[in-house]
Amino acid sequence: MAGREIRTVGVVGGGQLGRMLALAGLPLGFHFIFLDPAADACARHLGRHLCAPFDDAEALAELGARSDVITFEFENAPARAVAEAVGNTPTWPPAEALNTARDRLFEKTLFQQQGIATARFANVESQAELEQAVAAIGLPAILKTRRLGYDGKGQLRLHDPEQVAGAFAALGEVPCLLEGFVEFASEVSLIAVRGLNGEFRAWPLVANQHDNGILVQSTPVPDHPLQARAEEHGRRILEQLNYVGVLALEFFVVDGELVANEMAPRVHNSGHWTIEGARCSQFENHLRAIAGLPLGDPSLREPTALLNLIGQLPPRAELLALPGAHLHDYDKAPAPGRKLGHLTLCQPDQQALAASLAQARRLLAAAPPA
Amino acid sequence: MAGREIRTVGVVGGGQLGRMLALAGLPLGFHFIFLDPAADACARHLGRHLCAPFDDAEALAELGARSDVITFEFENAPARAVAEAVGNTPTWPPAEALNTARDRLFEKTLFQQQGIATARFANVESQAELEQAVAAIGLPAILKTRRLGYDGKGQLRLHDPEQVAGAFAALGEVPCLLEGFVEFASEVSLIAVRGLNGEFRAWPLVANQHDNGILVQSTPVPDHPLQARAEEHGRRILEQLNYVGVLALEFFVVDGELVANEMAPRVHNSGHWTIEGARCSQFENHLRAIAGLPLGDPSLREPTALLNLIGQLPPRAELLALPGAHLHDYDKAPAPGRKLGHLTLCQPDQQALAASLAQARRLLAAAPPA
Repeated sequence: MAGREIRTVGVVGGGQLGRMLALAGLPLGFHFIFLDPAADACARHLGRHLCAPFDDAEALAELGARSDVITFEFENAPARAVAEAVGNTPTWPPAEALNTARDRLFEKTLFQQQGIATARFANVESQAELEQAVAAIGLPAILKTRRLGYDGKGQLRLHDPEQVAGAFAALGEVPCLLEGFVEFASEVSLIAVRGLNGEFRAWPLVANQHDNGILVQSTPVPDHPLQARAEEHGRRILEQLNYVGVLALEFFVVDGELVANEMAPRVHNSGHWTIEGARCSQFENHLRAIAGLPLGDPSLREPTALLNLIGQLPPRAELLALPGAHLHDYDKAPAPGRKLGHLTLCQPDQQALAASLAQARRLLAAAPPA
Repeated sequence: MAGREIRTVGVVGGGQLGRMLALAGLPLGFHFIFLDPAADACARHLGRHLCAPFDDAEALAELGARSDVITFEFENAPARAVAEAVGNTPTWPPAEALNTARDRLFEKTLFQQQGIATARFANVESQAELEQAVAAIGLPAILKTRRLGYDGKGQLRLHDPEQVAGAFAALGEVPCLLEGFVEFASEVSLIAVRGLNGEFRAWPLVANQHDNGILVQSTPVPDHPLQARAEEHGRRILEQLNYVGVLALEFFVVDGELVANEMAPRVHNSGHWTIEGARCSQFENHLRAIAGLPLGDPSLREPTALLNLIGQLPPRAELLALPGAHLHDYDKAPAPGRKLGHLTLCQPDQQALAASLAQARRLLAAAPPA
């Protein structure tokens, strides 16, 4: 790419994703600046920290002035306002991608327009619309707020007709989506990246396990029978959005076919295993993409699994004694349900990985509840 | 280990070794504080920077007060004075190890006492002693300052008797060592680590290539026939010094036997490949050791080679386009002969590694001279 060389990366958000972006980018010679209103934002030790609200015009102007490129750690940032406030500094991914991803209606509509299967869905902006939607889609179904839902929050499962009454009020009378219930065999995610020049790469599909809506384990699956199909979907979405950077697509697997659930316009928890498990990590490739550098090889190095560390960290000595373990402590205060870190297990063969994983799961199960 | 949990690591020195220690330690949940008189110390973005001379009593007291453990990035730090000035904070490796390693006479004497072969050597503190030493050892030989030599600096090769006159003065009339010239087939280094509890681990022997005294390439050699012998030497040295942390031992290979050249009481340039090439890097294991945590697996993950980036960095886009390349830019100002970064190449087989290495060497050779 022509243009000035990218040295300083501005990040809207300073949580663990920003932190891991910086850990990947510092060795490449990048510097970082984080905009985050939290005084204890866990990326703050890895660059300059602008401690201000995401819509603070002065802070955004400073972010723009100090950065050669700006990116986002989470999709709920006011992307369009940021892009306007930072002046001429390029911001990636494009604001449209963030606007689409942060609204379940826009997201599902995009999937549908691109010919990607989804659960049946209907927009719900009143109790009356909810009742019409239930009549059309049937029960069981899930009512989800269109915005700001994550880790299973902002959702109601509707099994019986009597649960429908009052459901719209129970989620705060905000715009919602009713989604038909999908009986899935498994959940997988595709992490993909697109460069400034349109170059496309994708990591192996990841099999995900959730517990109460929170991701607990991710395992890359080499040669997954749905890899090519998922990459077709990913490529179409990224091209449609004129996307630059890493994007995650979450799918249900239903009768051997992919049903798109949601997307995240950023590096994604189910891709954290790529730091040690892939030839080039999602964090490094996101930075390579937005800096106009050639993309790295996303292929799997060896059998790998990721376990989230939620609520409380087991003792470090026990985590580090696990064979093939790589600890990522996000340096965050413990809280129930909070992602405090993750563990990546890499082993030379599947048998060793399974043994290490079983040992790790026993350790996590034994950790005192947070 | 009983005792307080180690969270903040103080590092005497804030160069690239401190920087890579921090990059390895931040994911483990450590915080860093660097003592370095250079305002532009390249580790400064990764922790608190105390910008003061290494013997500044106030700065050392602050380093001690803020750190749970203190370690050294280079052997020329005044280790004993540091250990005294920082109060009760443990410092590793022990001061005796640094004192031994920074003086070629002490170092060679230790090797000799431990039954490890060395070149013939003699202490030289005057021109008269140099002449006696030449008579005893013969020519060719190398006269080296006992202290502060690195990357081939502070050395004179003596081939002919007429070079002997004035040689002691040419090196500044400081204490020197005369070493017999060793005709070696190759140079290898052993990177080893010892834990607080005496646990010992070593990485595969590394084959090193120097150019004008500066390391240019390091390649780990799995199943090297001298691995066991090198580990015996390493274990003996570490135990003798009551060592905790990583230590590097450099050997010549002469007639299929190891001849010890020197040691470095710290993480070492010839071990930088371990970041991506080994299951646990030298940086992580150094931190695990000094924090009393279990040591990680030093085994090789796959064929790997390290190339130093000296004097000037080729364009990032070209470095990152190399297959299997991991770039480490130390964020230092270019200068002739200065180590500005390194490149680690990891590939699934030897053939792919050789191809990638050849491509990388062509790129480095094409870089405009610094």
